[in-house]
Amino acid sequence: MAKRVAVILSGCGVYDGTEVHEASAVMVHLSRAGAKVQMFAPDVEMMHVVNHCEGKPGTEKRNVLQESARIARGEVTDLAKLDVGALDALIIPGGFGVAKNLSDWATKGKEYSVKPEVEKVIKAFHQAKKPIGMCCISPVLAAKAIPGCELTVGHDTECDKWPYAQVAKAMSELGCKHLNKNVGEVHVDSKNKLVTTSAFMCNTAIHEVFDGLGVMVKEVLKLA
Amino acid sequence: MAKRVAVILSGCGVYDGTEVHEASAVMVHLSRAGAKVQMFAPDVEMMHVVNHCEGKPGTEKRNVLQESARIARGEVTDLAKLDVGALDALIIPGGFGVAKNLSDWATKGKEYSVKPEVEKVIKAFHQAKKPIGMCCISPVLAAKAIPGCELTVGHDTECDKWPYAQVAKAMSELGCKHLNKNVGEVHVDSKNKLVTTSAFMCNTAIHEVFDGLGVMVKEVLKLA
Repeated sequence: MAKRVAVILSGCGVYDGTEVHEASAVMVHLSRAGAKVQMFAPDVEMMHVVNHCEGKPGTEKRNVLQESARIARGEVTDLAKLDVGALDALIIPGGFGVAKNLSDWATKGKEYSVKPEVEKVIKAFHQAKKPIGMCCISPVLAAKAIPGCELTVGHDTECDKWPYAQVAKAMSELGCKHLNKNVGEVHVDSKNKLVTTSAFMCNTAIHEVFDGLGVMVKEVLKLA
Repeated sequence: MAKRVAVILSGCGVYDGTEVHEASAVMVHLSRAGAKVQMFAPDVEMMHVVNHCEGKPGTEKRNVLQESARIARGEVTDLAKLDVGALDALIIPGGFGVAKNLSDWATKGKEYSVKPEVEKVIKAFHQAKKPIGMCCISPVLAAKAIPGCELTVGHDTECDKWPYAQVAKAMSELGCKHLNKNVGEVHVDSKNKLVTTSAFMCNTAIHEVFDGLGVMVKEVLKLA
């Protein structure tokens, strides 16, 4: 039986949505493993729309579900319709959309909350003992939804290679156990069936991100 | 010396821009091969903006360069600034953006023309005997810019697997030599240093498209 995997998207584009290469890599690896993928996104307005040439937000409005459909080639379902009983695993790629549209981490930092419909889904997979894969910034969602979990967002000491290392420190301060891992590695929290990897939290070549996500997908499917 | 490869984007999203998974696959394979990639897109308004959930265009306006930056993670240059002398090869991923923003194939069919600044770049690479890789619908650009070239857009008999087979017929009617190739294969027109592959012209699993693009990238780099 093919494993049925839900992928939650948060828009289309690293600065205000899902990081497209992380999503694409996840889809390629799931496809190669013979998994059956169903993509979801919340049908809500994006926090803002960033001009990706300038890195600055404008005044335009866009919808998370509609923009996510650009990655999903049209095949994306409203997150509100996700049925955990019909799925074996959950994967949430990164990108600032996670911190802007799936939670308010981008504006609130450690005082953040996860959007209720996202938190509900994560908790439901966790309670059903179904594995969850998260990469880049998306492990911040697990830090809130699965208190005390073990995870990685890369390394906890800031440098050129790890420009977002302060997130790792915040994870520890929130009561999680953060483990330093390189981009090609994952951490598996066996108790919580949570698989995390740094992806583009690491400033590295795109094929290394691709390969790290391959390890994440493999470990998630092993637990499913 | 690392090969310097220009990648031309046409937006972000299969129905009105660059097909994101084709672009991502090209970037992963180029990265793994150690190539130095520079991304370009024309700084023009998109033909239209398609709601990718419904597959229908709306009234919104977006800019091709700005939307391409979502795939390029901000690192994209105005196509008008492309210097062929500083580059070793050209790759143009597919998606309807090729037929809408880089040419008017989507509205004119065989009576189409390639946007002058795009045609100029393709002709310049061709005249400099530098290789060009094209996939999915983007070989239609070569059909006009490199008359009589050999290419593939997949198969020329329509079926579930090859829903766009009429494009292959049109290529022949335009004086090109079309060769039927499966998704994992490419055609190399050695005389013109043109490497083509069907990618998402084939209705198949995404990892097969990924692998076909790997073959395309490899052949392009061999010729560079």
